This record gives sequence, C-alpha cells and structure tokens, in this order.
Amino acid sequence: METVSTNRAFGGVQGVYRHASTATGTDMTFSVYVPPHEPGAKLPVVWYLSGLTCTHANVTDKGEYRRLCAELGLIFIAPDTSPRGERVPDDPDDAYDFGLGAGFYVDATQQPFAQHYRMWSYVTEELPALIAAEFPAADMARQSIMGHSMGGHGALTIGLTFPDRYKAVSAFAPIVAPSQVPWGHKALGGYLGDDRAAWRKHDAVALIEDGARVADLLMDQGDADTFLAEQLKPHLLERACAAAGIPLTMRLQPGYDHSYYTISTFMGDHLRWHAERLMRNG
Amino acid sequence: METVSTNRAFGGVQGVYRHASTATGTDMTFSVYVPPHEPGAKLPVVWYLSGLTCTHANVTDKGEYRRLCAELGLIFIAPDTSPRGERVPDDPDDAYDFGLGAGFYVDATQQPFAQHYRMWSYVTEELPALIAAEFPAADMARQSIMGHSMGGHGALTIGLTFPDRYKAVSAFAPIVAPSQVPWGHKALGGYLGDDRAAWRKHDAVALIEDGARVADLLMDQGDADTFLAEQLKPHLLERACAAAGIPLTMRLQPGYDHSYYTISTFMGDHLRWHAERLMRNG
Repeated sequence: METVSTNRAFGGVQGVYRHASTATGTDMTFSVYVPPHEPGAKLPVVWYLSGLTCTHANVTDKGEYRRLCAELGLIFIAPDTSPRGERVPDDPDDAYDFGLGAGFYVDATQQPFAQHYRMWSYVTEELPALIAAEFPAADMARQSIMGHSMGGHGALTIGLTFPDRYKAVSAFAPIVAPSQVPWGHKALGGYLGDDRAAWRKHDAVALIEDGARVADLLMDQGDADTFLAEQLKPHLLERACAAAGIPLTMRLQPGYDHSYYTISTFMGDHLRWHAERLMRNG
Repeated sequence: METVSTNRAFGGVQGVYRHASTATGTDMTFSVYVPPHEPGAKLPVVWYLSGLTCTHANVTDKGEYRRLCAELGLIFIAPDTSPRGERVPDDPDDAYDFGLGAGFYVDATQQPFAQHYRMWSYVTEELPALIAAEFPAADMARQSIMGHSMGGHGALTIGLTFPDRYKAVSAFAPIVAPSQVPWGHKALGGYLGDDRAAWRKHDAVALIEDGARVADLLMDQGDADTFLAEQLKPHLLERACAAAGIPLTMRLQPGYDHSYYTISTFMGDHLRWHAERLMRNG
C-alpha cells in the first residue's frame, strides 16, 4: 500500500492510499479518516460507498464527516466505485451509468467485464483485509456500512448479505431495487447477464423478499431528487421492509436533491445512528 | 444577476450566481449561503475571501461552513479571486501566483492589468451593493470578513481599512505582510508598480504601522504549512499587533497544513467568533 497524501483534520488524519488490487487486477485508490485516539485504541469502522461517476474524492471533499468521526471515534473509509486503468473496459457508449465509475458493487460474470469488475469481492473481502493489516486502530469486529445512490444500493445489498459483520446499515437516496429500474437493468444485465435469478443477490428488495434481514435501516431521500421516481423508488423498499418486519426509518426530506449538499446535511444523523449501534454491539 | 444553481443544505439554500461586473468588466461568479430564517428576518453577512488558484467553489465544496451558518443564522458569501475571461490578461508565464486566480484584492494601476483587475472595488463596493439589492435577508449593517492565505491578506487589509463596516475580522494562514515576501513582491509590483508607498494600503502589517486599528483579530496557522516561513510570516503580524495594542489571537496549530482540511477544522471556531461580534454590534 502506497500513501498518496495525508492531511491533519479535526485532530485526526485524512489519508488517501493506493494499492495493487488482486480482486480487480488494477491499482485502486481509497481514502481513510482516522480520528484522534489513544495509542493502542481500537475504533469502529464505517464504510461509505459512493454513487455513479464518483471516486473516493467526492465524499472526502464534500461529505463533512470528519468533525463527527473525530467526536464519536469512528474510522471512515471511502473506496472507489469501479476499477480504472487503460486495460479496463468502459461502457461502449461512454455513458456515466455503466463501466468506469459505475461498478455497482458486483462481481461481473459477463465479458469483457468479468476480469476487472469485481467490486463485490474488493469491498467485502480484499479491502477489509488490507485495512485490518495496515490500520492497527481499525476494529474489524465493529464495522458498519452506508452509501449514496449506487453506493446506497451497495450498502444495502452488502449489509443484508452480511448482517452479522455490519452492525449498522444506512443510505442516502439509494437504488433500492435495481431489477426494477433502468440503471439497474443496464448494470446488472451488463455485468451479470440476462438470467434475472442472478440479479436477486444484488437487489435489496429482492434480498429481503428472499429472506435477508437486518436489525433496522436508516435512509434519507430528498423529494426534489430528479432520480426519485424513475431510478430510486424508495416505496419499494418501504413495502419490502414492512412485509418483512424490518424497521425502516425512511425520511423524505423536502426540497433536497441528489447532491452532496443533501448528504452533508444528513451525514451527522447517520454517523450518530451508526455510532450508537457500533458501540452497543462492540 | 443570473442564478447558476441552488441546492438545499442544512435547511437553507446554497446558491451560485453570476453577474456582469462593472468593476472588473467581466462576468463574475460567486456563492451565497442563506440559512433558514423567518420571513422578513435580517441576517448578518460573513464574507470569505479565497486564496491563490481558488474560485468561489473551493470553500463552497470544502469549507464545511453551512451547518454552523444555519445554526447561528449567518449569510456566507464567497467571491471569486480574480476577473476571468478571454480578454483578461494572465501572468505572462502562466504562474499560479499572479493574474487569473490571484487578484490579491487590489485595484491594479499598471498595464495591462488596470482595466480588469479591480478586486478591491469589486469586493468592497460592487458586490456588497448587489447583495443588498438581491438578497433581502442580508443585513448590510452587520458584515464581517474572513479569508485564507491571499484571501486572509484581503480580509485583513479590507477589515483594517473599514473597521466600522466589518464587525469581525479573522484569517486562516494569511499573507500578513506582502511587502516583505515573494508572493507579495510579485503581485503588488505587478498590479501597483514599483512605488512601495502605494503597497502600504495593501499590506496588513504596514496598515497597522500606519495607524489602522480593529477591535481584535483571530487567526489560525498550521505549523506544517509549507508556506509558513517564506510567504506567511505570522510573527510580523504578531509584532505589529503587539506594538499597536490590537488583541490578536494567533493559534499555531500543530501538524496542520495550508489546505482546506485545516480551514474546515477551524471554520466552526471562526464562525462562532464572528457571530459573537456580529450579534453584539447588531
């Protein structure tokens, strides 16, 4: 692992790092904020998965998470959203919603994507192992996960798949049912092929219908989000959670859009909600 | 005035606007955050002047000011750092420290800069008049000013020149004595010419030596700032304030650098300090 940069912030260190990933077969860049702590302390780890077109940098610049991570004693990790590099195939039409910046947190099975697009393995296996090895303050027995939009989809599907590992799961404006919306049709079809049975493990609503459970969920969704009606459809998650008995706190935020202005506004609430569950389950 | 974008954030509105400036003879872009408020309320106005290479966008993205501006009821304005456009002459060597992105908050008297580089008039006259006309919530009887690096220089020199207008003045890692450092030699020489007497109105230390006074000053400076020894020299301001009897709170912050990670860390302290003085003098 190579250190790209470190900067002191709110008494801790905001770092950006790069490593050669075996999961994706590319270099991968990610950011880690380590709050101020006593020597030898073990701190819970919050994963943040970003949305379409983003890298680690968007939330690192605009997420406004450091103040509360410092106050609550949380490590905050932001991976990239796809493999990158000359050898990595992109969307044939250079679209923003597939290929580079749009890995959808799956292991692709379809050519030409299967070799590099392995974001599920990267985020759930390789990067946690690297964090455990390189950041002695990280308490990998206390992890939680959140994300935005495509990254909200990633947080929900990963959280639902590993409910014992992630002690809290929340999302900002997530894609809750990719099997039922255009972004998801394109991405899951392109990465996983036409067999829709394979899609169900990467669809939060389908996972819940198929029996996956978490203790509870928190979600903020702006009602001025231009993707709300066509791509996000939060009522599908509300319905699935109600049927499954999963307590979902779904807050429809009047006037808020799909941007980091919304994420930064509600980041504090999410971090406090995560901290409560990470400390309780510590 | 044209609205470039508005986004809801922390209950208020973060806007970006553009207008044809008569001071600079160019279009100018700036950002304004208006916190949530009652209809008809009049709110104090905090000016933030940015550093070299920046536009309004750097602090708008990374400054982490909205949460506290919402809590304290402050309007926050971020102008650009220079005129821009095809007709605007830049540094002949395309350097970052003169010309575009480096207006140094002066009205240039030298050719070819005198026509457009009029940031002093823009920031102290034209933009305040526009804000008063276009933002009915702005209480122009209660203004304060802060800035970073070159913008700290701007905040100090403007605050010292108009101590009745700006009820609070603070800075992050400011250039305190441009007449005594390379950035300042180049900029003041290029914009104002070789007559160093003309520089003294644009040098905070010289202004204080020449009798300018403010009630007090707050300043944060990282000790890992790579510009500290050669360009910033905060001890020159400490010495001038001590000789003049101006109470200066100069906090040397261990491990902090010249970046927005530093600014965002201490932004909250500055906003509270401004709010105290803006409310007291209201």
